[in-house]
Amino acid sequence: MNQNLKHKRHTLAHLLAAAIMDLYPDTKRTIGPAIDNGFYFDFEFSKPISEKDFPAIEKKMRALLTSWTGFERHELSADEAKAEYPDNPYKHELIDEFSEGGKKVSFYKSGDYWDLCRGGHLENPAKEIDPDSFKLDRIAGAYWRGDEKNPMLTRIYGLAFDTKKELDEYVAMREEAKKRDHRKIGQDMQLFFIDDMVGKGLVMWLPKGNIIKSEIEKFAIESENAGGYQRVSTPHIAKEELFLTSGHLPYYKEDMYPPMEMDDGTYYLKAMNCPHHHRIFVHTPKSYKDFPVRLSEYGMVYRNERSGTLAGLLRVRGLDMNDAHIYCRKDQIKDEFKSIMEMTMRYFETFGLTDYWFRLSKWDPERKDKYFNEPESWEYTESVIRDVLTEMKVKFTEVEDEAAFYGPKVDVQFKSVVGREESMSTIQLDFIAKERFGLSYVDADGKEKNDVYVIHRAPLSTHERFMAFLIEHYAGEFPLWLSPVQVKVLPVSVKHAAYAKEVGTALKDANIRVEIDASDESLGKRIRNAKLEKVPYFFVLGDKEVESKTVTVEGREGNEGAQQLDTVIAALLEKIKNRE
Amino acid sequence: MNQNLKHKRHTLAHLLAAAIMDLYPDTKRTIGPAIDNGFYFDFEFSKPISEKDFPAIEKKMRALLTSWTGFERHELSADEAKAEYPDNPYKHELIDEFSEGGKKVSFYKSGDYWDLCRGGHLENPAKEIDPDSFKLDRIAGAYWRGDEKNPMLTRIYGLAFDTKKELDEYVAMREEAKKRDHRKIGQDMQLFFIDDMVGKGLVMWLPKGNIIKSEIEKFAIESENAGGYQRVSTPHIAKEELFLTSGHLPYYKEDMYPPMEMDDGTYYLKAMNCPHHHRIFVHTPKSYKDFPVRLSEYGMVYRNERSGTLAGLLRVRGLDMNDAHIYCRKDQIKDEFKSIMEMTMRYFETFGLTDYWFRLSKWDPERKDKYFNEPESWEYTESVIRDVLTEMKVKFTEVEDEAAFYGPKVDVQFKSVVGREESMSTIQLDFIAKERFGLSYVDADGKEKNDVYVIHRAPLSTHERFMAFLIEHYAGEFPLWLSPVQVKVLPVSVKHAAYAKEVGTALKDANIRVEIDASDESLGKRIRNAKLEKVPYFFVLGDKEVESKTVTVEGREGNEGAQQLDTVIAALLEKIKNRE
Repeated sequence: MNQNLKHKRHTLAHLLAAAIMDLYPDTKRTIGPAIDNGFYFDFEFSKPISEKDFPAIEKKMRALLTSWTGFERHELSADEAKAEYPDNPYKHELIDEFSEGGKKVSFYKSGDYWDLCRGGHLENPAKEIDPDSFKLDRIAGAYWRGDEKNPMLTRIYGLAFDTKKELDEYVAMREEAKKRDHRKIGQDMQLFFIDDMVGKGLVMWLPKGNIIKSEIEKFAIESENAGGYQRVSTPHIAKEELFLTSGHLPYYKEDMYPPMEMDDGTYYLKAMNCPHHHRIFVHTPKSYKDFPVRLSEYGMVYRNERSGTLAGLLRVRGLDMNDAHIYCRKDQIKDEFKSIMEMTMRYFETFGLTDYWFRLSKWDPERKDKYFNEPESWEYTESVIRDVLTEMKVKFTEVEDEAAFYGPKVDVQFKSVVGREESMSTIQLDFIAKERFGLSYVDADGKEKNDVYVIHRAPLSTHERFMAFLIEHYAGEFPLWLSPVQVKVLPVSVKHAAYAKEVGTALKDANIRVEIDASDESLGKRIRNAKLEKVPYFFVLGDKEVESKTVTVEGREGNEGAQQLDTVIAALLEKIKNRE
Repeated sequence: MNQNLKHKRHTLAHLLAAAIMDLYPDTKRTIGPAIDNGFYFDFEFSKPISEKDFPAIEKKMRALLTSWTGFERHELSADEAKAEYPDNPYKHELIDEFSEGGKKVSFYKSGDYWDLCRGGHLENPAKEIDPDSFKLDRIAGAYWRGDEKNPMLTRIYGLAFDTKKELDEYVAMREEAKKRDHRKIGQDMQLFFIDDMVGKGLVMWLPKGNIIKSEIEKFAIESENAGGYQRVSTPHIAKEELFLTSGHLPYYKEDMYPPMEMDDGTYYLKAMNCPHHHRIFVHTPKSYKDFPVRLSEYGMVYRNERSGTLAGLLRVRGLDMNDAHIYCRKDQIKDEFKSIMEMTMRYFETFGLTDYWFRLSKWDPERKDKYFNEPESWEYTESVIRDVLTEMKVKFTEVEDEAAFYGPKVDVQFKSVVGREESMSTIQLDFIAKERFGLSYVDADGKEKNDVYVIHRAPLSTHERFMAFLIEHYAGEFPLWLSPVQVKVLPVSVKHAAYAKEVGTALKDANIRVEIDASDESLGKRIRNAKLEKVPYFFVLGDKEVESKTVTVEGREGNEGAQQLDTVIAALLEKIKNRE
């Protein structure tokens, strides 16, 4: 937030308090700062107010604003200051703090309103604030100074932006975000849930959510098969020896689940798949001809996040990852990086994601403490990655001092449909695994070499985060290939049920996911249900369809008319095959 | 082992000791019992002997045997007995024990040999023992009385059966078992390994083993889709509340991994998937029309076996399970049980498994302490299951007092190619989950009912056990559809490499798993390698094949001649589709 906007928001907090004191004179006002999307002010009201009172308060704010043409600063002694709030223990507490050591405290005045304040306002609010660029937002309870042992106050939130247009956009985006909330859609569409008895941050994938998960996994397997990856399966736990070797212990210990003591040692749930994969790499002796070795696993890892921070799919303790590690020689880094970039971009294209850019995170050569000290390797690999990004003509930024300690990385930055920026995929280069795990191979000259570079990559993020993103992105209207139910068959009445069954069987035999809704509800109700469930296609079957052996197709774009079943099935299969 | 065979084996232990005392008179003999495949005797030799000495010892045994026409029993006082072994502390220790309270001890004599013994011999060894029906087997070290604080003795094992034919069969089967050992083949074919750094009993599936795993999983998914199952995914851990609800805690606690203390409670690795699935069942309210609900998951569970008992894939701590739980009304139990039986038998047919039978394990109505006390339910369900088994005309036995405490079950018993009998699949009925998890539904009359029966089933056993069984069954010669490499392409020389690549690409494009071996080795060597790797087909490509654009196909049955590539691919795809 720029300084001007911050001052504007803080000014509006004063203006809110001025309006409240005018309308509800026996209120005790406390404090009111600028926040990310506007401002708030905490009050102790003598009678509860509600959001219904907002129009009157806003009206008063706008009326007062015309007279707020400047701010005057005054200095008062503690006693003088307290006299301004004869019956307000909150202000007295603040004044005592601010005046410690006999200091005077500052008051700011605009129009007829003044208040204890350290400053930070606009110079001429009446001139600088567009009265339509702010509005009151909502009421919440808030403990005085955030401490639950203190009295509960009433907090009034306001929204404020530079212009009315920005305010309107913000409100619209927030509405959209609410509609697209992955927790709500996940519940409505029966995709997943989080069960207190199982534990926080641990996702239970319901049959419909699991279909989407499986389709994405299938897509990943297909892409990886084509890309020369080899799939492995490894257990979810390992002895501490493994994590001591990798360095997860002790450096990452607090993010791992606590240890389990067994009769043959101490075990941990894995927080990452790499140590297991490195052990698979070294299990079979390698020759220079074996490279690159690409090991992939759709594996679950577990991380110990504090229970209070867990939320929906965005912050979880069990993470499903479409993970892989590529082991290559130095001369292969460029090609491998490029292939991964291409695979990543093909994924995004399939999911209709376009609003992203790359970020090359580099080391800081001055910080030898923070980064593995192989300047030549850093220089070489950073330039290789930069070349790839440049040659591929993709949008990218470079940032210093943001690399992993073991090598540079490329993150893919996304702007979600609701305007949230986040890192999605990551491609990381690793110089250090070769030392820790003794990765090596026999070179063409018969000598053992150990310049094995590892690329860690997760183009589809964690499945949980990616699903949250996709649910939001599609607002639950998944494309056909991902839809848990692809076609809903609706017989108009009971006499069309036999034909509906026939159609259902034909679809099922073609591996199209179908549900027949022959319930007692009216056709209208059943159509509305199908739409609510965001099913991409539904077929309505009545006399006409039974007679002509057709189906009347309704898609998300509307009625597509009566068609031969074979034709429709072929068209749907083509779309599914193309992941549309 | 029948009583006669037991007596024969014990008699042979005496005969072995007699031969040893004749050949090595300063040996200290100890004890020698009958065992499952023969007998052994433990000695303290003054000079080490080896298996090279076996022919001489066997010859001596056979020579002595002719004079062993009966057994005489004698009773001696402790002192008299000890005088028979002037310098043998082992026998003195035994005599002290046996004679406690002043009892006399018994000696048995046959031929010129006698020994401290409680009896159990043949009446006329010379007549009853075919000298070719036994042989010495191997030498091993064994602590006196199995206690590692005692001296190490030399144990000589012998094999003995009723007839020479049975002995020969046993030896042949054991040879076969050694060749088919899943650990050896698993290592040779690079299917899996167990890594000390990861932990005992935790399988690391290498790319080739993982292909087999994925193919079996794909097969299961296909079968389950056709059977109306819904797939779910659940985490590998849960809070103790879940396992207290299921009853795993405290009853199954010692078989579970130790707890992990988190900031919001105590967590455990799951040992079974059922509690998670029950929670999925209750998450969405059910109507009578929703049944049966079939939830499946290819899920990993963890069990705390003692590290000393872990062996290969047969005894592990991490178990991958093609698991499912079927929730049904009482009137649906029969149909569901039958469907599962049919699915199970279809699996076995595909894998070419024929040597199995079913075992109906029932409760014992007298043991109300051991079984959930719902006599009517037991009677009803046992008779339903019996009806299914009878109607399906399958081979089955019934055993009392072998049910789970929550209901009757059907186990599938297998005789492996190496003669080992084992339980593979299991289908279990569960009366108790409905109470513990509040499984219920709204019936046609609008009332809530809770007669929800759960069937636990794992037709493919655990993946680890099943793989061990399959490796043995196929001796590593997996059928085409399961083979990690389906075709190996062998260009005769470097000038055929381009065509080999072309053929390889065509196979790969057809989703056939192919490897090109264009290494410097001779063609003969490469063919031998392909056979050692148990690849089902290899294509040899030389001048003739390049010219005619054909491939010369070698299968496990031998040379199938030169064929058009398209024709071969079509034939292979057909076999793969049919899971041949």
